[in-house]
Amino acid sequence: MDRGRLEAFSDGVFAVAITLLALNLFLAGPGHGPLLRQVADHWPSFVAYLISFFMIGVIWVNHHALVRNIAIVDRTLLFLNLALLLFVVLIPFATGTMAMYLTAGDLDAKVATAMYGAVFEAMGLSFAAIFAWTLHEGRTHQAVPAKARRSAWWRFTVGNLVYALAIVVAFVSAPVALGIIGLVAVYYVFERTPA
Amino acid sequence: MDRGRLEAFSDGVFAVAITLLALNLFLAGPGHGPLLRQVADHWPSFVAYLISFFMIGVIWVNHHALVRNIAIVDRTLLFLNLALLLFVVLIPFATGTMAMYLTAGDLDAKVATAMYGAVFEAMGLSFAAIFAWTLHEGRTHQAVPAKARRSAWWRFTVGNLVYALAIVVAFVSAPVALGIIGLVAVYYVFERTPA
Amino acid sequence: MDRGRLEAFSDGVFAVAITLLALNLFLAGPGHGPLLRQVADHWPSFVAYLISFFMIGVIWVNHHALVRNIAIVDRTLLFLNLALLLFVVLIPFATGTMAMYLTAGDLDAKVATAMYGAVFEAMGLSFAAIFAWTLHEGRTHQAVPAKARRSAWWRFTVGNLVYALAIVVAFVSAPVALGIIGLVAVYYVFERTPA
Amino acid sequence: MDRGRLEAFSDGVFAVAITLLALNLFLAGPGHGPLLRQVADHWPSFVAYLISFFMIGVIWVNHHALVRNIAIVDRTLLFLNLALLLFVVLIPFATGTMAMYLTAGDLDAKVATAMYGAVFEAMGLSFAAIFAWTLHEGRTHQAVPAKARRSAWWRFTVGNLVYALAIVVAFVSAPVALGIIGLVAVYYVFERTPA
Repeated sequence: MDRGRLEAFSDGVFAVAITLLALNLFLAGPGHGPLLRQVADHWPSFVAYLISFFMIGVIWVNHHALVRNIAIVDRTLLFLNLALLLFVVLIPFATGTMAMYLTAGDLDAKVATAMYGAVFEAMGLSFAAIFAWTLHEGRTHQAVPAKARRSAWWRFTVGNLVYALAIVVAFVSAPVALGIIGLVAVYYVFERTPA
Repeated sequence: MDRGRLEAFSDGVFAVAITLLALNLFLAGPGHGPLLRQVADHWPSFVAYLISFFMIGVIWVNHHALVRNIAIVDRTLLFLNLALLLFVVLIPFATGTMAMYLTAGDLDAKVATAMYGAVFEAMGLSFAAIFAWTLHEGRTHQAVPAKARRSAWWRFTVGNLVYALAIVVAFVSAPVALGIIGLVAVYYVFERTPA
Repeated sequence: MDRGRLEAFSDGVFAVAITLLALNLFLAGPGHGPLLRQVADHWPSFVAYLISFFMIGVIWVNHHALVRNIAIVDRTLLFLNLALLLFVVLIPFATGTMAMYLTAGDLDAKVATAMYGAVFEAMGLSFAAIFAWTLHEGRTHQAVPAKARRSAWWRFTVGNLVYALAIVVAFVSAPVALGIIGLVAVYYVFERTPA
Repeated sequence: MDRGRLEAFSDGVFAVAITLLALNLFLAGPGHGPLLRQVADHWPSFVAYLISFFMIGVIWVNHHALVRNIAIVDRTLLFLNLALLLFVVLIPFATGTMAMYLTAGDLDAKVATAMYGAVFEAMGLSFAAIFAWTLHEGRTHQAVPAKARRSAWWRFTVGNLVYALAIVVAFVSAPVALGIIGLVAVYYVFERTPA
């Protein structure tokens, strides 16, 4: 199987998932109070949209960088990639649930935010699994050098630990957990690794 | 017509259909009981999402393998492919209906699960029709060898019989029928045919 | 501008529009009567899905055949193509409205079916406009021969007259008008022009 | 990173966003008055659909023209492009909100139309930022000539000032502000810059 169709399908899923995020943005409409008040009351939806949009964007950017170097595509890779996409597609649902509950109830806000973090955790682990797959000799155009390998593992470990931290923190404070995930997005956007 | 645009269009439909699956995942929201209880009550939605996601993923993988070898694209192929996509696009609807009814009523749970199986059956038969089309001389880059031909027919027959079995079993027990379809997905994911 | 991105964007819109058709398929859910009764009551949704799916499929096939021969892409073509896509994107809405009203009220069923026909009429006229654009010298790789030109005009005229007929017939009988549009889809699927 | 996947992902997002516009077109259904009356009452939805469709179409056309000349893709460009797409994806939401409120209440109609203009303003500024990025030496296949550079800046400035004007005017008259944005769309469609 050639890499092109793997990329085309993945790009399609990323593009649809990132656009579906906006379906969580809706307002009750006329007769439910002033529009500005409704927007203000829905602030978690807009913050969640912003964070999830850049998280999916970051995954797309990193996915490209990872896949570009792949020389052979086998069924294992196809299904590891499907596992990654399984969690990418869950992001709009997890985002909407979190936004809906963030200001709702005490325990439910925590559960919803932990679920949101859990989707990113699962996504991060799938991504690490694809990276691990690429390390076998002959699967990439250029063998990943030992140094790049170590720094990549380091990044995956840190990323997945931060998501795990966000899940734990969610049970103390949902907004702080959301802030942690938001900071990960900001960190990735401003990180200066060459693309 | 070149194969590229057939693949691009099909990949687009697969990508949108697989992402729309997540639209069936929604919760009633604050004021309808604890979030964890809602998630637990909606368990069929999550199981159905998982099964349907990997089923569409498997169809995409197999579609690629089948189409890659095609040398000419005629109108017959285009419309056989549209028939396949017709049923792929029905998967999110059938998944949502099945998930909604699985725990609802006795007969309706059976009917909904049989409908879910019927969409896979129709999809499997369309896929077999495309395969049959490829067997005419000159339609593929390399003629399909007799052995591969026999093993492919064998696989299509088994697959379509299993879906038929699931439809029949649905009228005895909806969860068992769902389990059979789930096992097909697991089987395909772990099958080790070279991609 | 190269043709590739025009095709990629158009294919994306076709793929999303054809998949969104299935969003019109929904059932009221448990507590609204037996599932099979609900499916039977919703029969216009399923018939409309089938017709619209193949109509969009046919447009996609013909769009490809038309665009493949284009040598230069100018802004006029881009916006004629956007006009075509404007009506393609309206098909799911027109399909859903028609299906919702077909069995509802007398006049409204007629209006909804006429609207459905009007979207295809507008789509057909946009398609003819793109074809007219391709006839200027130097815009296609190979000049369209006079005979092909005449037969294409003939087909466009017949197609657009049939849609106009369906709109008029809708005010006499909505199901007959729907049948006419369905026959157009069947005709195109079984037509044997070389792709 | 190669330009192809940036284009493919962007085209996917444009295609999904433009198609999701039609989800804002829905009618209350049978039992809510004559169909034609409902369509007439929903006129802002149809006007808004038309304007937003051509605005996204224009952005897509201009995006293509801008990206085609890019020689290198770095992380800065990827995230500027994500920022542009962030606002493109907001267009269906802003369109739906504006259409819902245009005929609803006095202040809310103004706020909703100003929000609609603000999304285009933010989109226009993101677009200008991508253009500014391309001006650095070596980032494009051909350096942008001084004259083209001045005329492009002029166009971005005018476009963004017109959007700003529409936002201000919205607080005086929502329909006039909508008309201004509509005129921008018409202007771009009929503009005769070589593609």
